[in-house]
Amino acid sequence: MIDLYTWTTPNGRKASIMLEETGLPYAVHPIDIGKNDQFDEDFLEISPNNKIPAIVDQDNGMSLMESGAILIYLAEKTDMLMPKQNRWQILEWLMFQMGGFGPMLGQAHHFLHFKPEVSEYASKRYKVEAQRLYAVIDHQLEQSEYIAGEYSIADIALWPWASRFDWQQVNLDEFENVKRWYISIAERPAVQRGYDIPIRVGDIPMP
Amino acid sequence: MIDLYTWTTPNGRKASIMLEETGLPYAVHPIDIGKNDQFDEDFLEISPNNKIPAIVDQDNGMSLMESGAILIYLAEKTDMLMPKQNRWQILEWLMFQMGGFGPMLGQAHHFLHFKPEVSEYASKRYKVEAQRLYAVIDHQLEQSEYIAGEYSIADIALWPWASRFDWQQVNLDEFENVKRWYISIAERPAVQRGYDIPIRVGDIPMP
Repeated sequence: MIDLYTWTTPNGRKASIMLEETGLPYAVHPIDIGKNDQFDEDFLEISPNNKIPAIVDQDNGMSLMESGAILIYLAEKTDMLMPKQNRWQILEWLMFQMGGFGPMLGQAHHFLHFKPEVSEYASKRYKVEAQRLYAVIDHQLEQSEYIAGEYSIADIALWPWASRFDWQQVNLDEFENVKRWYISIAERPAVQRGYDIPIRVGDIPMP
Repeated sequence: MIDLYTWTTPNGRKASIMLEETGLPYAVHPIDIGKNDQFDEDFLEISPNNKIPAIVDQDNGMSLMESGAILIYLAEKTDMLMPKQNRWQILEWLMFQMGGFGPMLGQAHHFLHFKPEVSEYASKRYKVEAQRLYAVIDHQLEQSEYIAGEYSIADIALWPWASRFDWQQVNLDEFENVKRWYISIAERPAVQRGYDIPIRVGDIPMP
């Protein structure tokens, strides 16, 4: 049994979608970041960076923070979604998500969606970077059905961030390979179930 | 033999320090991002995100982008700097670096060092986040000599970003555990050699 501490954010959904894809039994513990639950002392023990998601694996007592580490851990635990022959390609694209298609899109959310009025310079900076990041994966998805060969943790890492295309002012019609990939993943039942963890906030956005 | 494509940035130095620590033979190919070398067609083949560092392992012909993936690859290749008993703790802190103590400090470099005049709001945002990130690792380093037990790829990932404390307007005297850790790593001969790859730009900054 896995304890999952999470909320309805792209990083949270990476973990819940992965758990749904693997079929591992898990218990959901909502950490409402709107209410600052992530700053509770108990949660800090599990996640020293005060961020969701985090897991505790009751099979061995280990706690783990950081969605990228959680994806690798669950892939190795189940021997699913990180096939050996593509392992390094999967890990490089997972790192691309962790370092770029995530942190930079998070800044786009801040300066384009939540605080569009505070800095024209910053809004433009992250709008341009979002376009660049989508162009990078579009180019990759032109050559490959999924980001690193078959469907893997790299796709599970990228997809929840792409599901905020609207906040990022990204028009998926301009990235046709991303659009095809996005829709095909959105149709997966495990993705649909994982998207609604810990609570349902609405339908998956569709282009 | 490893081909290393790199420049004098924190992400570039993660790879060169790792190569120096492992003792693997490697050939350096400077990619001068000041001259936009990273946009050359040949380099795009190796690094689809147009970023340094990237490596090609001549032993198997594989190319790999993303510093975080390169660190794991070299650790597994040599069985060094990622001991099994700490593997998950190392990976979670590596991911913390990839997702936060890197992308967010990069924004601090932009809005505090390169473009301090463009947005007071953004400058403050990333100054506050830099302080928060240093407090997170300071708390961890209070309990542990290195970030995840013994010296590992997690330290090699974090340290080059900490070496830009000046650009981040971070005073290491306010983070005494980080300061102790930073100086002890700066004294390692492999770190000193790796810092000067592909060219020497000056001494390692000392607090």
